[in-house]
Amino acid sequence: MIRHSGFTTEPWQVREESLQLDVLPQTESLFALSNGHIGWRGNLDEGEPHGLPGSYLNGVHELHPMPYAEAGYGYPDFGESVINVTNGKVMRLLVDDEPFDLRYGTLHHHERTLDFRTGQLHRAVDWTSPAGRRVRVRSTRLVSLTQRAVAAIRYEVEPVSHETRVVVQSELVANEQLPPHNGDPRGSTVLQSPLRAEEHHASDVHLGLIHSTEKSRLRVAVAAEHRVDGPDGWQGTSEAEPDLARYTVVGRLSPGERLRVDKTVAYGWSRTRSLPALRDQVDAALAAARHTGWQGLADEQRQRLDAFWDCADVEVRGDQRLQQAVRFALFHVLQAGDRAEEQPIPAKGLTGPGYEGHCFWDTEAYILPILTYTDPDAVAQALRWRHSTLPLAQERASQLGLAGAAFPWRTIAGRECSGYWPAGAAAFHVNAAIAAAAVRYVECTGDEDFERHIGVDILVHSARLWHSLGHHDEAGTFHIDGVTGPDEYSALTNDNLYTNLMAQQNLRDAADAVERHPEAARRLGVDEGQVRCWRRAADAMAIPYSEELQVHEQSAGFTRRARWDFAATHPDQYPLMHHFHYFALYRSQVIKQADLVLALFLRGDAFTDEEKARAFAYYEELTVRDSSLSAAFQAVVAARTGHLDLAYDYLGETSLIDLLDLEQNTRDGLHLASLAGSWIALVAGFGGLRRQGGDLSFSPRLPDHLFRLAFRITVFGRRISVRITRDAAEYTLLSGDSLVIRHHGEEVRLTPERTETRPLPDLTPPRTPSQPKGREPVPFAQQ
Amino acid sequence: MIRHSGFTTEPWQVREESLQLDVLPQTESLFALSNGHIGWRGNLDEGEPHGLPGSYLNGVHELHPMPYAEAGYGYPDFGESVINVTNGKVMRLLVDDEPFDLRYGTLHHHERTLDFRTGQLHRAVDWTSPAGRRVRVRSTRLVSLTQRAVAAIRYEVEPVSHETRVVVQSELVANEQLPPHNGDPRGSTVLQSPLRAEEHHASDVHLGLIHSTEKSRLRVAVAAEHRVDGPDGWQGTSEAEPDLARYTVVGRLSPGERLRVDKTVAYGWSRTRSLPALRDQVDAALAAARHTGWQGLADEQRQRLDAFWDCADVEVRGDQRLQQAVRFALFHVLQAGDRAEEQPIPAKGLTGPGYEGHCFWDTEAYILPILTYTDPDAVAQALRWRHSTLPLAQERASQLGLAGAAFPWRTIAGRECSGYWPAGAAAFHVNAAIAAAAVRYVECTGDEDFERHIGVDILVHSARLWHSLGHHDEAGTFHIDGVTGPDEYSALTNDNLYTNLMAQQNLRDAADAVERHPEAARRLGVDEGQVRCWRRAADAMAIPYSEELQVHEQSAGFTRRARWDFAATHPDQYPLMHHFHYFALYRSQVIKQADLVLALFLRGDAFTDEEKARAFAYYEELTVRDSSLSAAFQAVVAARTGHLDLAYDYLGETSLIDLLDLEQNTRDGLHLASLAGSWIALVAGFGGLRRQGGDLSFSPRLPDHLFRLAFRITVFGRRISVRITRDAAEYTLLSGDSLVIRHHGEEVRLTPERTETRPLPDLTPPRTPSQPKGREPVPFAQQ
Repeated sequence: MIRHSGFTTEPWQVREESLQLDVLPQTESLFALSNGHIGWRGNLDEGEPHGLPGSYLNGVHELHPMPYAEAGYGYPDFGESVINVTNGKVMRLLVDDEPFDLRYGTLHHHERTLDFRTGQLHRAVDWTSPAGRRVRVRSTRLVSLTQRAVAAIRYEVEPVSHETRVVVQSELVANEQLPPHNGDPRGSTVLQSPLRAEEHHASDVHLGLIHSTEKSRLRVAVAAEHRVDGPDGWQGTSEAEPDLARYTVVGRLSPGERLRVDKTVAYGWSRTRSLPALRDQVDAALAAARHTGWQGLADEQRQRLDAFWDCADVEVRGDQRLQQAVRFALFHVLQAGDRAEEQPIPAKGLTGPGYEGHCFWDTEAYILPILTYTDPDAVAQALRWRHSTLPLAQERASQLGLAGAAFPWRTIAGRECSGYWPAGAAAFHVNAAIAAAAVRYVECTGDEDFERHIGVDILVHSARLWHSLGHHDEAGTFHIDGVTGPDEYSALTNDNLYTNLMAQQNLRDAADAVERHPEAARRLGVDEGQVRCWRRAADAMAIPYSEELQVHEQSAGFTRRARWDFAATHPDQYPLMHHFHYFALYRSQVIKQADLVLALFLRGDAFTDEEKARAFAYYEELTVRDSSLSAAFQAVVAARTGHLDLAYDYLGETSLIDLLDLEQNTRDGLHLASLAGSWIALVAGFGGLRRQGGDLSFSPRLPDHLFRLAFRITVFGRRISVRITRDAAEYTLLSGDSLVIRHHGEEVRLTPERTETRPLPDLTPPRTPSQPKGREPVPFAQQ
Repeated sequence: MIRHSGFTTEPWQVREESLQLDVLPQTESLFALSNGHIGWRGNLDEGEPHGLPGSYLNGVHELHPMPYAEAGYGYPDFGESVINVTNGKVMRLLVDDEPFDLRYGTLHHHERTLDFRTGQLHRAVDWTSPAGRRVRVRSTRLVSLTQRAVAAIRYEVEPVSHETRVVVQSELVANEQLPPHNGDPRGSTVLQSPLRAEEHHASDVHLGLIHSTEKSRLRVAVAAEHRVDGPDGWQGTSEAEPDLARYTVVGRLSPGERLRVDKTVAYGWSRTRSLPALRDQVDAALAAARHTGWQGLADEQRQRLDAFWDCADVEVRGDQRLQQAVRFALFHVLQAGDRAEEQPIPAKGLTGPGYEGHCFWDTEAYILPILTYTDPDAVAQALRWRHSTLPLAQERASQLGLAGAAFPWRTIAGRECSGYWPAGAAAFHVNAAIAAAAVRYVECTGDEDFERHIGVDILVHSARLWHSLGHHDEAGTFHIDGVTGPDEYSALTNDNLYTNLMAQQNLRDAADAVERHPEAARRLGVDEGQVRCWRRAADAMAIPYSEELQVHEQSAGFTRRARWDFAATHPDQYPLMHHFHYFALYRSQVIKQADLVLALFLRGDAFTDEEKARAFAYYEELTVRDSSLSAAFQAVVAARTGHLDLAYDYLGETSLIDLLDLEQNTRDGLHLASLAGSWIALVAGFGGLRRQGGDLSFSPRLPDHLFRLAFRITVFGRRISVRITRDAAEYTLLSGDSLVIRHHGEEVRLTPERTETRPLPDLTPPRTPSQPKGREPVPFAQQ
């Protein structure tokens, strides 16, 4: 747990006021910089001490064999794993004749600050070497949101006490040694030395390394350029070898003098481009960055972030930690998705090697919803990436004996990389999440061109999948059997309600889309008969419901299973999957993460309010939240069903997951979906945002601990500001044409530049639901 | 397919009249000799050419890591794999200056005969070397059923044309090179060089090698002794090195002269005994064998087999191939089980490395039933082995969160070695098969001592397992959820009918047993309340039944699933699991092997005749027989429901599986369960043998192709002969007291030495059921 005095609570930054080596790996994730293309973990400039060095390029992976004790038809032979690419962050320092290493000497002050508005990571150090030489070191690091191939470092050193000779070594390091992996199955298969040297060069202030991967056959180029500002007499030299390029600056500084090295790093990779082309590409990026200059890069970064916050900021009053947490979350979501550009948005972004750098349904179900309302271009790009993997997904569907396309459960380049099919291949709901994300994007932006060329393809192939996956029984009911829903403590169930409802929507959305785009239908070979079949299957979809208990069933027969013996389960035995066999979990009423509860939100139209209330109460008793994907949607449904304080506690869990290292694996990277959940819990939970096609509604309510919540969304070509207090909600149309929204069901017409204020209706608090013993959420204030 | 002119059809032997190298690996399995302790594949004496060299000691295995692409709690870390132990069969021959190698020179005649009555493998060769030296070689090999540590070879060579110098090298070879594995996942993980040398010695006619395994820490000792008979002037020398001991005989023979080398080999292994103790053990075995002499060993073997056939022979008239096949089957079942003695009976016996040498439920469900009625002492021994693994099974149950004991799905030494838990750990029905085998043995033999010390333990621990595995629903019905039945094309089903019915019986048998043995109940801590719970669960057991279709369901909801698209399945796509993903199979109505149909037989009391007929017809349409475990029980139920010709075809499939290499993997070892199925199909199928507690009944009927079936069984301390013709059945009590049996429901009192004859009732042939397209059984005559 990162719960030490070193962290301050501030609205626009995360600041660590002292260095604590025991949480270094976690802070490297928290302080990671990324633009969705390049990811740099927040490793110390001098490389060591480190928790886990990490430099990533989105899409750059290596293949590794997937072993099976007993193999089966259609099991993936090779998995994809993110690799640690050439490290361009390293700035080593020699102070007189001793290395600047904070494990030795005396550290007077150490401060790191991640600033959400400047997009920069600042560091200030005041240190005395074992030999008594005191220096101040300052560095500023950014990964550019405006020049996606570029990252930059400003590194400054000044002596305090004596005239001091300093040596700064600015490096590019390939195949750096990684610490041994800790063995947690949720972690990463670390691939050691994945890069094969192809070219290295150094001349004057310029460095370059080009490598390729062996099995995935990708080429990675990195180049760096330097600008030095220091007292007379400093000297710079450069040298390169296959896995190391180094620019060394030596100077003698008196107290008050300062040596500054500005380093610009450019990254590029390609599956197809030649070595000279890729070398030119990174050198061109450096040329552009040189033209912009350090200050120019910093200014652009600030402008981009100002624009983002103008569209996306969420302001909360009542708890400063929540304010910080939600902005931290939004900042990292932006970093992960802003410039991914036809590459996946992995579950951990580019902040660490967790989950092998794979992208899951998290992207479409958790991250894209925020981006749709705050940075919609990033959504189009992410879905274009999915679209680009359609051929692989069609191949996979065919291998599974199905029509259409089956997108992988976890992947980097589009191959299925799940080694456990009951919680991989069988989790077909990933396809519905992708289809829903495409529909959401199109409905919110009106991007018809996207729909015609990308959206329809995704919808048609997923509809075909669902139609071949299910079947009509004798009575005509359409069943989808043998699949795994979001809750991974059940598997291979029949008629998973979430899956069925999402598939139903998918089938209808596909039918609507091909009817809107007859030329796309022709291109895809969809005829009217097929559309009729989709609609018929959707209309006949099985909806498991227990008449006896008057509650929907997570899957057919779910409520008939034995209840998990929560009373006999020790707190140390969570997460259950680390202490119990899947067999024991699968046959019991025990839920890892929101599943039916997620359906209550995403397909809220399929339930009455009473059904929602009953279902939430029933499943709340069974849900242990052993997945970080759970709390956000529990918060949303808790808020909708009137359990505001409970929703607030879940919001705390989802938003503080990494700042407090709640799952004890933040070292492997941030939990982006859970962070995204902060926004979802606030905006869809307390804000009550719902959208159905072109209808937009809010049903805001605040928990006791908050007295103000304000957020902005971009939708239907408008920008709307919503400000909620304990008594009323104010809606302002910041840009775009008038439109009608709903406030707690009441129509409200928004016109430009005018604020509409509506009171919040009273709420009779319902009976508080209960959670499994020992799995109640920790109250926010006690987190 | 072994379908060549080399094989003759003879009632008491398998004879190959010419050597065909392309089927050498298969014939090595067919000609394997074993006593259940030692197994020698039918490799040629001179070692090469070979298909797969194999010498096995029951229980001797090595551990190997089990890899997982995604590991989970409770997955086995290490698997057990049978290893090829020191080869004591090798007799190399030099003819003048050329090795006797049948790939060169001219082979005039080559004949191998496995004799079911003498238990010997004979070989006669007439060969001319490339240099023109013609020799006759004869060998006889046996693995003693009476001296279980001992195997013996008589090797004779005589020149035909010229005076010839011959060298015979009799060897013990450890870590012999094995051919590369063919990659079939059903095959074996071949462990190369698994033996570490501990001691080697050679003196005069005596050889010895002692090795141990690295991870399983077993010690294996082999010793050999020789007796030479030849013309004057022969010389013998011996030598040893760590992995090779060799006794070399040189002699010069004129035509008409003969050199004979009798080799006796003794094997021993232990987990605990010291090297000197084990060396003494094998030398003592050699001393005993020396005392008995070659002819004595042969005579004892014959006597043991005479006694066996007197108890076990099945005589059929109407098809000579069937006669040969059923005796072949019985012979190999005897070989596998007779002297296993507190070691498992593996699925392939000791005939090959298939399935890694593991023991499955096959043993209790297929092999022990025959042995119960023909060689009951072997059954007690096999169950004592299971009993000895109870501590591991209790540990496994506890790991799975269950009470009692969970026996492994596949194992050698008692550890779970299945690497795919949905078809391993979840297949709990193995426990019911073990319990049922114990009850069957006790009821048939009256071995009360066994019941008190072994049987009750097995029953109590399995009953506890079932009781903790299932649960009562609100209405009181007892459900067993999330388990896999015998049919491996379904998994993790609720209320698998076979499992439920077997568990029901298990619970009741356990309750009965502890009531009979109150002191055992005390020892095991069983109180009356527990017994009441078992009976209550048994009485409330869920029995899935489709009211709509008026047919029992293989598992809850099975008949609601989509039917497999058999019309679209190409004949080359069987076995389906090699061409379709488990996901596709699990959610469909398609059945790999008899499951509910097995319940129709084993729990025939739970169904009316009409229910059996309907269920058989329904499931017959869905059963593809992709497992060799299927046909036997389909034969039994087909016979019971009046489909005699169909039963006959299934009998053909189960009995000819290895003689015709129907599954194309006989090279890896024989399919003992399928072979055992020949007896089951004849005796329980056409003989109609059923036993319920102390009630014995027959309802014999013959298919058109047979005009006589006679068999003998040992039960309740009696030996009974049954002879069935097309018109009548004759019952003779060969030994023991009078008893009442039933013939087609009619009571018949058998008294000593008197034959009771009863006519067979007429049968109105029912409507012929159909099988999936392309999976109809091949008519016996066309096999």
